[in-house]
Amino acid sequence: MRITVLGTGVVGRTLAAGFERNGHLVTLGTRDPAGTSHRDDFSEWAGQHGAIPLATYADAAADAEVVVNATNGAASVSTIEGVGAEKLAGKVLVDVSNPLDFSQGFPPTLSVKDTDSLGEQIQRAVPTARVVKAFNTVNAAVMVDPRLVGDGDTTVFVAGDDEAAKETVRGLMTEFGWSDIVDMGGIGAARGLEMWIALWVRLMGTFGTPMFNLKLVR
Amino acid sequence: MRITVLGTGVVGRTLAAGFERNGHLVTLGTRDPAGTSHRDDFSEWAGQHGAIPLATYADAAADAEVVVNATNGAASVSTIEGVGAEKLAGKVLVDVSNPLDFSQGFPPTLSVKDTDSLGEQIQRAVPTARVVKAFNTVNAAVMVDPRLVGDGDTTVFVAGDDEAAKETVRGLMTEFGWSDIVDMGGIGAARGLEMWIALWVRLMGTFGTPMFNLKLVR
Repeated sequence: MRITVLGTGVVGRTLAAGFERNGHLVTLGTRDPAGTSHRDDFSEWAGQHGAIPLATYADAAADAEVVVNATNGAASVSTIEGVGAEKLAGKVLVDVSNPLDFSQGFPPTLSVKDTDSLGEQIQRAVPTARVVKAFNTVNAAVMVDPRLVGDGDTTVFVAGDDEAAKETVRGLMTEFGWSDIVDMGGIGAARGLEMWIALWVRLMGTFGTPMFNLKLVR
Repeated sequence: MRITVLGTGVVGRTLAAGFERNGHLVTLGTRDPAGTSHRDDFSEWAGQHGAIPLATYADAAADAEVVVNATNGAASVSTIEGVGAEKLAGKVLVDVSNPLDFSQGFPPTLSVKDTDSLGEQIQRAVPTARVVKAFNTVNAAVMVDPRLVGDGDTTVFVAGDDEAAKETVRGLMTEFGWSDIVDMGGIGAARGLEMWIALWVRLMGTFGTPMFNLKLVR
């Protein structure tokens, strides 16, 4: 598939490389391609992933079948609005971001929670896109390789209003090796998936590593 | 040990019966003992647990070594304040409640979250009590019998500022059969443990049962 990943931080780069390994045609979107390509962390990574082109958010999204929002949660809604509803209409928009607010230090608080979620804000910003909340519950390295944690049999989630879009995301997850994929229902369930991060960040402190995940035993 | 459970709903009754099975001397605390003893759900249960006496919150707490708050989250702080700092001073106060607000229907929202927690509110209400947030992450039946879920190897938590108090609670958990008990640090971690409930209630809807739990794989 033609997959565009918005965001060139660790999460965006890790997902982009993972999708490319699985045979997809990947493009990375960023605000300022020239600036990003000169950023030290990015240029080092790009040297090993030369086949993944870099474009503006809007240009990168234009030709994609699936768009992944891996931008900073604080900038996600404005980034998606900047891409515009026209370029995202009808497309699967996978939101992997979390509404983290580090302004008070660690652990971060959530800038939206409980009565709304970032996933829902993004769906409202581009109503004709088919938003699926996914991958936000684990570390980037685990997103693309669940076998890094325990025996690999842990749980990941999808939530969204469009069944076919969720099926597409489940397929991408299965390619990464995920087998226990729980469908939480509509995009409103993003509230629960994002609030899990309040426990996740504290567990990272307790365990001293982000390399863990939950398995839902039932 | 002499354990007093505050609250005569399903959670309080289940914990009280569980502690009694494990050989503890248990008392149940309620606002109005006469009214509670005539409540249909309680009198039926009491017929099978005649050895567990019922007293006012304050009387029940007076002689206890460990006090368990299993009251409705919306009433927990005022109940604890009603018992009073004098009767709780130095005691282990296990807070199993969640700040659920059902006023907008299901799923409930949280009346406190992110920048504060019910566990912290209770600790502030009785500063000389040794508050431990625990058991709030699972269904009542699972609290006292983890083997009801999967192979019984799932995760439960303690959080609190007093190490000896947490050790006491770990002991009570171990008697119930818990083995993977994660110490989250100080009572501030109650924020993460309570916000997990936002995901838990949606999982209960998805699975159609409260008989599940997370295992933290690391």
